[in-house]
Amino acid sequence: MEQYQDHLSGVFQALADPTRRAVLGRLSRGPAGVSDLAKPFEMALPSFMKHIRYLEGSGLIRTHKRGRVRTCEIVEKQFAAAEAWLSEQRALWEGRADRLEQFVMQIQEEGKSK
Amino acid sequence: MEQYQDHLSGVFQALADPTRRAVLGRLSRGPAGVSDLAKPFEMALPSFMKHIRYLEGSGLIRTHKRGRVRTCEIVEKQFAAAEAWLSEQRALWEGRADRLEQFVMQIQEEGKSK
Repeated sequence: MEQYQDHLSGVFQALADPTRRAVLGRLSRGPAGVSDLAKPFEMALPSFMKHIRYLEGSGLIRTHKRGRVRTCEIVEKQFAAAEAWLSEQRALWEGRADRLEQFVMQIQEEGKSK
Repeated sequence: MEQYQDHLSGVFQALADPTRRAVLGRLSRGPAGVSDLAKPFEMALPSFMKHIRYLEGSGLIRTHKRGRVRTCEIVEKQFAAAEAWLSEQRALWEGRADRLEQFVMQIQEEGKSK
């Protein structure tokens, strides 16, 4: 459970930065080399590489080097924990709203039958 | 756009902590007072209050004080940006998987008709 919590914290932390989200958005379309990924950002390559390493550390991407080119790809299943957590909250508060609605309808029905 | 990105970063940052996620999980079930929320955590109240203020700052919860009791409640719509971002990535990579499948089927069909 603690390992799961750590993983979840790591994923949300990785997503909490606009550069990292933009990189993930690009990789959702397919694998890409680091230099292509870096192009849209006004950032020195070492700073950009820190984001790449951060994403790799979180498990959201994997990278491999062939010759001088490092290619990155997204690891889709790693997003599942974050999606599941958000869905769970929605299920909880929607369930609560449903129960409230049922309660109000019950009160109204009881009012009518009096 | 920049404001949206800042909001999204703030939401993911707020979710990147197990205590804050546990508080949100509790509030998904309904509003609660700060002292009730703090009970499950082995944490001094001032440290716990930092998390509450962080969540309030991110917009994920709102709080109001009546007498000496501060009540917290979840702001459901604030989760929408994070959910939308994750769904968008899924749509992108699933679209890519669909296109790849179509391509492979096309190749197979072409192979059969030769």
